[in-house]
Amino acid sequence: MGVELSIPKAVFDRLPRYYRYLGDLLDQGVDRTSSYDLAERMSYSATLIRHDMSTLGDFGRLGYGYDVPFLHGKISEILGINRCHNIIIIGSGNLGHAIVNHSNFAQYGFAMKGMFDVSPKLIGRVFRGIEIQPLDRLEAFIRENDVQIAAVTISKDKADDLVDRLVDAGIKGIWNFSHLEVQVPDDVVVEDVHLSESLMRLLYRMDHRV
Amino acid sequence: MGVELSIPKAVFDRLPRYYRYLGDLLDQGVDRTSSYDLAERMSYSATLIRHDMSTLGDFGRLGYGYDVPFLHGKISEILGINRCHNIIIIGSGNLGHAIVNHSNFAQYGFAMKGMFDVSPKLIGRVFRGIEIQPLDRLEAFIRENDVQIAAVTISKDKADDLVDRLVDAGIKGIWNFSHLEVQVPDDVVVEDVHLSESLMRLLYRMDHRV
Repeated sequence: MGVELSIPKAVFDRLPRYYRYLGDLLDQGVDRTSSYDLAERMSYSATLIRHDMSTLGDFGRLGYGYDVPFLHGKISEILGINRCHNIIIIGSGNLGHAIVNHSNFAQYGFAMKGMFDVSPKLIGRVFRGIEIQPLDRLEAFIRENDVQIAAVTISKDKADDLVDRLVDAGIKGIWNFSHLEVQVPDDVVVEDVHLSESLMRLLYRMDHRV
Repeated sequence: MGVELSIPKAVFDRLPRYYRYLGDLLDQGVDRTSSYDLAERMSYSATLIRHDMSTLGDFGRLGYGYDVPFLHGKISEILGINRCHNIIIIGSGNLGHAIVNHSNFAQYGFAMKGMFDVSPKLIGRVFRGIEIQPLDRLEAFIRENDVQIAAVTISKDKADDLVDRLVDAGIKGIWNFSHLEVQVPDDVVVEDVHLSESLMRLLYRMDHRV
């Protein structure tokens, strides 16, 4: 990206959602939108939307609103999803398959390149064009396929040693479904997905109507 | 719960994580901990931990620290996971199976009671003791089994009508994996899980080292 913007975390957390709504507008052939129109669709306030957009640069024009393709492209650039990112999946259980199956990732520039497992009976199987490979192929595959991200879907006890191998092989982002508290060097990022925390949040909101 | 506490959202968002760490301590037979000890394990500051605990009540004692079983129980009460909650899963694809398979939910009081699908070839199959049922059994099953929560794992286009049926049948919490922007009455809560947003967050943090 040309200019390095400093975007507040709260704004950044909303960007994927803006990107999704702007994409829907594009699909519908809509080229122009306003903070009021977006506010209605997204259940955000128009004031919040204008604030968020102003932190990204000065995109709105008085009496015109926002140019949808431009803003969509700009957010895609900020999110880094205008480039391609290669991902491997560690673990070929239901969760691994659900990730490969996820229809939305390709549109965000994420390419699922390989799946790895220890189970001999799974190795060699092909799912959506992706072959399940043994773990001893891991390091070579990461290098040969320019893989930056690994989704770790295996259980906590098996994930521990594996994360070190991934980092040593050059992985810079770990998408962690394993419930392991992963320790990594400073130049590697871990994004944890805790489904049970999401379910607890739902329950708390049901109990407290928030 | 006896006393209704007003817990700031930021603190609440950390409670599942505290609960998990305190559970690990209990498993290790540790009865007493301190904000410093927790800080080291959790990569939070001791000050933040003391602040968070003080919003839950006055649990720490100077020179003693925190009573692990008591605090664990207290957080479980606040999160509502000391009670049992019945869940059904709509959609018996990989994601639905991954949810049923998820080993942690039972320990938080969540019981997976049923799975529903439209595909005739899947109906009647049993997975981890849960039979896949046709959608025309939905309303009766929800009533007969006191189900409060539905995990919606089907695609956006199919989910739309179904959410109305779930709400009409008495579901109060929708755990939404479908990418559908769900519209529900005020007494129903929707918790969205957007895996693509999590992946975009990982990417952004890799690009910006945050």
